[in-house]
Amino acid sequence: MSLFPEMFGGVFGSSILKKTQEKGLVEYHVTDFREYTENKHRRVDDYPYGGGAGMVLTPQPLFDAVEDVTQKSDAKPRVVLLCPQGERYTQKKAEELSKEKHLIFVCGHYEGYDERIRENLVTDEISIGDFVLTGGELGAMVIIDSVTRLLPGALGNEESSVRDSYSSGLLEHPHYTRPADFRGMKVPDILLSGNHKHIEEWRTKESLRRTWKRRPDLLHSADLTEQEKKWLEEVKKEK
Amino acid sequence: MSLFPEMFGGVFGSSILKKTQEKGLVEYHVTDFREYTENKHRRVDDYPYGGGAGMVLTPQPLFDAVEDVTQKSDAKPRVVLLCPQGERYTQKKAEELSKEKHLIFVCGHYEGYDERIRENLVTDEISIGDFVLTGGELGAMVIIDSVTRLLPGALGNEESSVRDSYSSGLLEHPHYTRPADFRGMKVPDILLSGNHKHIEEWRTKESLRRTWKRRPDLLHSADLTEQEKKWLEEVKKEK
Repeated sequence: MSLFPEMFGGVFGSSILKKTQEKGLVEYHVTDFREYTENKHRRVDDYPYGGGAGMVLTPQPLFDAVEDVTQKSDAKPRVVLLCPQGERYTQKKAEELSKEKHLIFVCGHYEGYDERIRENLVTDEISIGDFVLTGGELGAMVIIDSVTRLLPGALGNEESSVRDSYSSGLLEHPHYTRPADFRGMKVPDILLSGNHKHIEEWRTKESLRRTWKRRPDLLHSADLTEQEKKWLEEVKKEK
Repeated sequence: MSLFPEMFGGVFGSSILKKTQEKGLVEYHVTDFREYTENKHRRVDDYPYGGGAGMVLTPQPLFDAVEDVTQKSDAKPRVVLLCPQGERYTQKKAEELSKEKHLIFVCGHYEGYDERIRENLVTDEISIGDFVLTGGELGAMVIIDSVTRLLPGALGNEESSVRDSYSSGLLEHPHYTRPADFRGMKVPDILLSGNHKHIEEWRTKESLRRTWKRRPDLLHSADLTEQEKKWLEEVKKEK
């Protein structure tokens, strides 16, 4: 649900989101809820009760648009409002949403939402982070991308390997590819050594090191083996 | 810098991002860095040294693309890599980036980045949140939108009032607009009372209540007046 449906074409028409549609795994529909307004000037917003600056999205067009789409659906949709007041979006929420058959995203655009939309129309309020965006559209695209890639069959082998690398709960170790020497910047010798045991150890340590330096909060919830815990202590002492 | 330049058209061509270009406040250019590869098969990625699944973006095309664009620029660009290992994006970072004359965003797409890109080409690594996206493009669009709206003259009056409402560090109070009764759902009487002092008090309390319930972490850094502190205590007792 957006007043700027043209924003979505490029993103829905590329890469994984394009492929998943072609495979028939998912369908995307963009509804311009202005089409549902009963206002003769086609307005969808109005001045706030109680005064003040800014406009507020009026309930009628959104209620009618969501109800029309819901009526045509064979599932009861989750209705997600993108807003700064919402629950912070995480991979856990992506996994939860990926189990739904039908999701509706309500994207306001710099106006406020009439509170009755929040209280009586939507099932979830989500914020993708503590920064100010012009509208909900980019947030909806972020959620749609992260949810779509979790659908069974969505990813090819090449893509899914990257996904797996997150499952440890740690940040990834450094990657290197050819050439071994690029303008004097060299690949670490160990990666050229052919000793897979040493390479695995190096990678795990680098992953622990990067996580400890950049995102120590992730270490609290990471599921570390005894060996990894030892390596983490080693890494901390090196500093 | 993206291998999927077609993703950006819809977002750059709508709303504030469109208007700011038309006003001459900002220019967006999308560079397909595949155009810079010296590989005869036009490849931009290769297998990882040390083995393992997944592909890695090779340094040459990105170094050459960024250097070419930098050479043509009259400012020294900040080069932002979108990646899960990056610093978490916040409004503070948006404000910092909005002071730059030229920003370059490096968007990988499910491949890893060769570590030499991270170490020797980019100036900033940013993640927009703890969720897995197919590529850096949506992150770049999120940053571009939030930074553009901070440029002087970017927002009209209507839009800027919403921006101001974040400056208190609290979540917004509920908004209502016409009709006063929508399908039996009514606007709170106080907003129809015409008593501006009471309305202001109600709004501040609701803002405090919502922040306390949904994002108590924001209260630590919010700059509250003595009166607001009192109201916050009242709100907490109501529970």
